[in-house]
Amino acid sequence: MLNRVRSAVAHLVSSGGPPGSGSKDLPATASPVPTAPPTAPRSPPAGAESGSRASGGAVESRGSFSRPTFLQLSPGGLRRAEDHAGRVVQSPPDTSRRLPWRTGYAEVINAGKSRHNEDQACCEVVYVEGRQARMGGPGKSITDQGQQGLCFHYWGLFDGHAGAGAAEMASRLLHRYIREQLRGLVEILQDPAPPPLCLPSDTKASVSSESSCPSGSQSCWPLQKEVTHESLVVGAIENAFQFMDEHMAREQRGQHAVGGCCALVVVYLLGKMYVANAGDSRAIIIRNGDIIPMSREFTPETERQRLQLLGFLKPELLGSEFTHLQFPRRVQPKELGQRVLYRDQSMTGWAYKKIELEDLRFPLICGEGKKARVMATIGVTRGLGDHNLKVCSSTLPVKPFLSCFPEVQVYDLTQYEHCPDDVLILGTDGLWDVNSDKDVAVTVDKVLSSYEPNDPSRYTALAQALVLGARGISREQGWRLPNNKMGSVDDISVFVIPLGGPGSYT
Amino acid sequence: MLNRVRSAVAHLVSSGGPPGSGSKDLPATASPVPTAPPTAPRSPPAGAESGSRASGGAVESRGSFSRPTFLQLSPGGLRRAEDHAGRVVQSPPDTSRRLPWRTGYAEVINAGKSRHNEDQACCEVVYVEGRQARMGGPGKSITDQGQQGLCFHYWGLFDGHAGAGAAEMASRLLHRYIREQLRGLVEILQDPAPPPLCLPSDTKASVSSESSCPSGSQSCWPLQKEVTHESLVVGAIENAFQFMDEHMAREQRGQHAVGGCCALVVVYLLGKMYVANAGDSRAIIIRNGDIIPMSREFTPETERQRLQLLGFLKPELLGSEFTHLQFPRRVQPKELGQRVLYRDQSMTGWAYKKIELEDLRFPLICGEGKKARVMATIGVTRGLGDHNLKVCSSTLPVKPFLSCFPEVQVYDLTQYEHCPDDVLILGTDGLWDVNSDKDVAVTVDKVLSSYEPNDPSRYTALAQALVLGARGISREQGWRLPNNKMGSVDDISVFVIPLGGPGSYT
Repeated sequence: MLNRVRSAVAHLVSSGGPPGSGSKDLPATASPVPTAPPTAPRSPPAGAESGSRASGGAVESRGSFSRPTFLQLSPGGLRRAEDHAGRVVQSPPDTSRRLPWRTGYAEVINAGKSRHNEDQACCEVVYVEGRQARMGGPGKSITDQGQQGLCFHYWGLFDGHAGAGAAEMASRLLHRYIREQLRGLVEILQDPAPPPLCLPSDTKASVSSESSCPSGSQSCWPLQKEVTHESLVVGAIENAFQFMDEHMAREQRGQHAVGGCCALVVVYLLGKMYVANAGDSRAIIIRNGDIIPMSREFTPETERQRLQLLGFLKPELLGSEFTHLQFPRRVQPKELGQRVLYRDQSMTGWAYKKIELEDLRFPLICGEGKKARVMATIGVTRGLGDHNLKVCSSTLPVKPFLSCFPEVQVYDLTQYEHCPDDVLILGTDGLWDVNSDKDVAVTVDKVLSSYEPNDPSRYTALAQALVLGARGISREQGWRLPNNKMGSVDDISVFVIPLGGPGSYT
Repeated sequence: MLNRVRSAVAHLVSSGGPPGSGSKDLPATASPVPTAPPTAPRSPPAGAESGSRASGGAVESRGSFSRPTFLQLSPGGLRRAEDHAGRVVQSPPDTSRRLPWRTGYAEVINAGKSRHNEDQACCEVVYVEGRQARMGGPGKSITDQGQQGLCFHYWGLFDGHAGAGAAEMASRLLHRYIREQLRGLVEILQDPAPPPLCLPSDTKASVSSESSCPSGSQSCWPLQKEVTHESLVVGAIENAFQFMDEHMAREQRGQHAVGGCCALVVVYLLGKMYVANAGDSRAIIIRNGDIIPMSREFTPETERQRLQLLGFLKPELLGSEFTHLQFPRRVQPKELGQRVLYRDQSMTGWAYKKIELEDLRFPLICGEGKKARVMATIGVTRGLGDHNLKVCSSTLPVKPFLSCFPEVQVYDLTQYEHCPDDVLILGTDGLWDVNSDKDVAVTVDKVLSSYEPNDPSRYTALAQALVLGARGISREQGWRLPNNKMGSVDDISVFVIPLGGPGSYT
């Protein structure tokens, strides 16, 4: 079994070029470094400072590369990666320059669904300098002030649609917006005291609520609501998504560009994994064989009531083309006056209503499962971008119904003992379209048990096996999987993040 | 133990008068019969037809009684029930005329918090006549048409505020609105085929989708979405709540009356329990000692994001007095320009924001736990009534932020084997303020194990024990419970519905 898995993988995957082969085409760094990182929220990125420890040599231009730089693809490798017929599975090269945290990664292009692979990925270690250290004059080093920055590990999967632009931009910039949001919290997060309710108006964060409240202790009422350090990190990630989306709005409107992406992001900070999801990618933890869901998908079906409520409260967003009511199928003009099943924004059940003229409009939400759509246009309801997305043959914008806000779930790594086979799996929908959580857990068990716990390649091998098992065999065979199920025709990207075992937390 | 529980109960509870003692003051029936049942949705109730099997002799006037008629209280009993000092626990008399389904019930008035007990309750068996049977001419009996009506069991707890009027009205009418909504579904629910998508425009329900679609089979596309019989019952209950609320709107606006109520309702129909909750009452099932939550509470805290989103999308509802942002406490004018913790409608975490002038408005949601309020006015966010409720010293209406829609959870009784000690407990917040689910489960076990499985009084004894254990000992002792915890100062009403055992489903 061990050999079968390994040889199957060996024939069908590509781990970049041989070590060094990409050196002419690629920077020495595994990190894509943005040319224009954000320095202040809501303002266009400026400056060229790098926030990543891993980014040794910065590149100003990403050239024509459209795959994650950590794959270190040569031009030949890139051509192979973009081959829809072969659908070679790509992973980072098996050299000493592995991804941080022993992370495994693999990806494959779709079966001709779009020209390019519209998924993107990012894996970084990001250093956050505190505001005080940053603002200290030249004579004041970090050590002088007794303050230290913070590091966070970061993984991001971005599933693009209507082009790869939004996913590519998010993979370059979102972690920098997160860094920017965390910058004001560096001292607060390292202080065991509860976060101060109010801070002085300048950008210096004070860790003492006594000194930060301007009007003496009288005004410093005890907090009415408990605000935890954890909830500050959650708030920082939520706001970073919003700022990233506003950044895209400026870029897309200027260029009249379309396109958007789902974003599934993990931040490891001070012992906790923050899993932030906006879209239909999915994260699960496999711990001791048990499945722990770490995200929920946001689709027209799961967000039906939010979307319907918005259409109900703001009917101008529906134009004269859509109705916020849901029907099991489109109502026909000849059914005027008949009683047809419907539900509105406040219902989870169904009832009959007499069909009136305005019920003949197209329903805001239609279809089911993978075919469900908002405004007959898009099948995911959260993500970044899509600022110019219009309803087909209409000027009606879709964006008001989409949310850029992620749902953040927190997993405290320090609360559990983890073994080397415990992993956090992140996958774009290409993986989950043809695999249940249980299927993935079976593959995790099968692959990891065939490798030594200390084998550094085991997590990449697992990522490859997951992608390979979902992608189907070949176009000629109708992308069938070995067990005769249909394979995924979508792009597939997978991160495998080990939760335990020696050297994991590096 | 058995004796201790029994004698404690015997001293402190009152089960109405002795059998027959209430006959002069009370109707022979245990059912409150509305004088004006609804016959058509959205129109004022008319006619005097009774939909209840248990309502043998209708009463036109309820006189001054403000407690459920099934308690059969004499004037003396009523006076005792309204005594805030003694706080006698009330239950239906221990006679052969028990509540349907061997249901146990007990209640107690509050500790002087309001003049009257503002809780109300209803327990009924309701017969639903199909529309076809109802519309058949005098020569057509139900049997002639081969159609039968449906019966549902019904339990309702209504926790009133700002007066007992809304709770009293809901206890009289809500089950009739449910009956009205189910009437059009009688034939459909009894047909194993999936519900037809469309029905003819007259009020006859047809069970055949062939015959009901007006334009031949061509127009009868297969259902795009699966609509189950269960979801039709859920939709019927949801709409019944809305019609009940609209009924109150007409009544309250005409009389310039205030007041509202939370509603927790159970409908047993065709093998399933539908538990519908709008407010902060709670339902749990105890099955084999395990706790199964059957409702969620709707408060400013649990509904924060819905309320904030509404304030954000419709700022005119906030006037110039409120902000939709949440702060851990009220922001002070002297904090203008400082950075203070906040969260908006899209966040679950917290972040700092610079305080501007409009942040000094009162937050839409303030306080925590039992003290949380919407618009500084009300602590529950779903329920019936409150149509004239205004913000204190303002003309701003609160009602737009309140929802009359229940969340309905379904429990399939046929899926499990139940023993006589398995029960569904319904309680107003007075019970849960001082008891966790686990506390209640302990009492369930303690009391039921001290009675024979066939003892008809065991479920009423359990309801009494639950109320007694929550109400505290006496005013002099500060309403302390025996274990030195504070007792509830609120009205408490409890239904105990057995899920198994001989003769339960009657």
